[in-house]
Amino acid sequence: MTVATSIRTGRADDPTLAALQAELTGLLGDRVVTSLAVREQHGHTTTWLANQPPDIVTFPETTAEVAAIVAACARRKVPVIPFGTGTSLEGHLNAPHGGVSVDVSRMNRVVAVHAEDLDCVVQPGITRKTLNEQLRDTGLFFPIDPGADASLGGMVSTRASGTNAVRYGTMKDNVLALTVVTPRGEIVRTGSRAKKSAAGYDLTRLFVGAEGTLGIVTEITLRLHGIPEAIAAGICPFPSLKAACEAVILTIQTGLPVARIELLDEIQVKAVNAYSKLSLPVSPLLLLEFHGTEAGVSEQSRRFGEIAADHGGGPFEWATKPEDRSRLWQARHDVYWASLGLRPGARGLASDVCVPISRLAECLEETKRDIEESGLVAPIVGHVGDGNFHAGPLVMMDDPDEIARCEGFLHRLAERAIAMEGTCTGEHGVGQGKMKYLKAEHGEAALDLMRLLKRSMDPDNIMNPGKIVAA
Amino acid sequence: MTVATSIRTGRADDPTLAALQAELTGLLGDRVVTSLAVREQHGHTTTWLANQPPDIVTFPETTAEVAAIVAACARRKVPVIPFGTGTSLEGHLNAPHGGVSVDVSRMNRVVAVHAEDLDCVVQPGITRKTLNEQLRDTGLFFPIDPGADASLGGMVSTRASGTNAVRYGTMKDNVLALTVVTPRGEIVRTGSRAKKSAAGYDLTRLFVGAEGTLGIVTEITLRLHGIPEAIAAGICPFPSLKAACEAVILTIQTGLPVARIELLDEIQVKAVNAYSKLSLPVSPLLLLEFHGTEAGVSEQSRRFGEIAADHGGGPFEWATKPEDRSRLWQARHDVYWASLGLRPGARGLASDVCVPISRLAECLEETKRDIEESGLVAPIVGHVGDGNFHAGPLVMMDDPDEIARCEGFLHRLAERAIAMEGTCTGEHGVGQGKMKYLKAEHGEAALDLMRLLKRSMDPDNIMNPGKIVAA
Repeated sequence: MTVATSIRTGRADDPTLAALQAELTGLLGDRVVTSLAVREQHGHTTTWLANQPPDIVTFPETTAEVAAIVAACARRKVPVIPFGTGTSLEGHLNAPHGGVSVDVSRMNRVVAVHAEDLDCVVQPGITRKTLNEQLRDTGLFFPIDPGADASLGGMVSTRASGTNAVRYGTMKDNVLALTVVTPRGEIVRTGSRAKKSAAGYDLTRLFVGAEGTLGIVTEITLRLHGIPEAIAAGICPFPSLKAACEAVILTIQTGLPVARIELLDEIQVKAVNAYSKLSLPVSPLLLLEFHGTEAGVSEQSRRFGEIAADHGGGPFEWATKPEDRSRLWQARHDVYWASLGLRPGARGLASDVCVPISRLAECLEETKRDIEESGLVAPIVGHVGDGNFHAGPLVMMDDPDEIARCEGFLHRLAERAIAMEGTCTGEHGVGQGKMKYLKAEHGEAALDLMRLLKRSMDPDNIMNPGKIVAA
Repeated sequence: MTVATSIRTGRADDPTLAALQAELTGLLGDRVVTSLAVREQHGHTTTWLANQPPDIVTFPETTAEVAAIVAACARRKVPVIPFGTGTSLEGHLNAPHGGVSVDVSRMNRVVAVHAEDLDCVVQPGITRKTLNEQLRDTGLFFPIDPGADASLGGMVSTRASGTNAVRYGTMKDNVLALTVVTPRGEIVRTGSRAKKSAAGYDLTRLFVGAEGTLGIVTEITLRLHGIPEAIAAGICPFPSLKAACEAVILTIQTGLPVARIELLDEIQVKAVNAYSKLSLPVSPLLLLEFHGTEAGVSEQSRRFGEIAADHGGGPFEWATKPEDRSRLWQARHDVYWASLGLRPGARGLASDVCVPISRLAECLEETKRDIEESGLVAPIVGHVGDGNFHAGPLVMMDDPDEIARCEGFLHRLAERAIAMEGTCTGEHGVGQGKMKYLKAEHGEAALDLMRLLKRSMDPDNIMNPGKIVAA
């Protein structure tokens, strides 16, 4: 598969690009931008990959405009890269072959809320925080919380999850239907508002996690959940990572419906204490949240306390006041910034393995040992109820030796997770960064099938080329 | 798309078939059968469609054997139809173009149970009851329960659900990974045992619900759940369908985690009372089940009782003893047989619409009126927590006028659900029976995309041809 090689980033003198720009300007007026600053802002994400700006940035406001942009690009075989808020972590939004960035940030409306059906219809540019603010009066909320205030379109496309996936599932489980513009510029609706359906191929799940390589999501029907009557959160220190993991396994296995169960290793706790001005006990720590009725939450908490004590954990401390709870989860969400404080001047890199929970302790311990042996500083935080954790090396980008050690570590980490029947990415997605692990993870036959899907749906490889399986 | 037209059901003198049969016999010995009785048994399901037997029936025992069968068929462009237990309802297993039935009933082992990870690996021929019997000592169970003792491979392929999907989701939500033999005879593994993954296209969900038209499932990694500590079941009569529906909406909306919430209309209740020797109150009835801790179940029950009373429902009666509970759910599972008792000599047909729950009362009432105006007898039973119900006309198959009225009714029912943003099939699948509704439900663009997927993955259209989108 190849992309039109005449297209090169920033070549304003390219006649194809000039004609495309003229056509797009005819469609969108001043919502077509080619300034370097805006192009560079759209050519990079929170990664250590180099900036690869698109040639043109567009700001459509409707599905029809997105379809017209894609059709104009398709006729000229020019790449199209969808853009939400730019918070993705694996170079999903970079434009390695140039092309047109389709920034959906102006498509940020809640189109409809169906409170009785526990669903809503949104445009892809709305962010999760804005959505939840707009839902507040309904008594409902959208639970998926990847940390960053990402756009819902981006969250669909990376199959995002985060802290409370252990209770509410991932984007895969919370999208009922999509409207998608295909690589040919056609508009496809992938499902109804029925809660379940057996009416043919699951087109919705085909686009969830496809990272914009099969089409651009322009409307999303989301499942909502009732805001729990009672919420309780707390922290529980453990003598070792292994003890904490064993408590997690038992918690999950006994079916305690924890809403969040997050692990911080002692390095991460130190960083969080310093950054968020907390005084959490400096040891492996579980942060928990329970959702339910008053009685249910109190029962869950008591049971977890017993499980923790059986594994040498405790004391289990409650954050009963909403403001203490907010502070705790804000601190959890700020771990990236907190980590940077451990090593001023360093860049924080992300990793994202996920393993069967029975292998979690082993995987974490081997990873800790590997970090030490590699001479790296890499705090660990994990959505351990799902077996998913992030070891985030802090790297001085002017030290080639350290970069090499870091690359080696990240490589071994992905291979370790795959060898334990896990995945190189639980929630961040493949983008450019994880392409090299897909063969080991899926095998050649499955990868061939992914390539076949891509080639069939996008024969000219214009849709976010250079990501997942595309050349 | 065409299938090899030289292949005709039962043409033993066809040289292509003769060569294929010889090759298959070389592979499988006496596990290749061509007797009419066995072919007819594999050419029909619980439908009113005519029997369309395959030419050859095979009984493979391993993934490698399935791959060899498919490769032999692919070389000759002969259709391949996967077969589990034959309980599907829409002609999924009929062989309209002849070909080879791949009966996986001998592939019925539990390959591995990973109790700590709440997952297991099974072969596709195992049935859900056998699986749960084999899991009993682990304290875990597989919840999806479509009523019939279906094979897990069939349940994957129809995206089955059933009575407790309202709590545990459908097959879409409970399959972690698959091994699939593709139409080219290649073996693809679609995922790992990680609880979540963002590593590329969701191949698992591509095959779940594909009804064997994209490949044959030969191994399944399933999510398991802990057997609840406490289970409570009960029945609650309502003065009208509308009142029952409104109680269901409020139950779901307040987040009460009901495990089952099933509706029977008064016709269905009469049938059940007669068949199962019960004395349920003859009015619209909800059958409920709650799973949780003792305290949780008791709280859920109390809350549901309040909601029911607010809608004129009650008294809410408990089946506290396990044997009473079993009797109640056995009666629920036997509604098909019970219905037949209402009209001896009639055939019971299945319908399977699913609508957003806010439209459920309206859809049910219009459907009841339509049944009366059509002069049909059609009891209604529904997984109403999901907005899914089955109106099952009892039809004398020797009365062309009644058959015509029934066809008209079923057609209007599907169109009614689609017009209410629902689906023509919540859990039975498309097969041959629902193909005619897909355009209205999905639109031409989505249907084109389904056709593209089918054509790309199975260019010779050998894999269960004539189902879903295939010609």
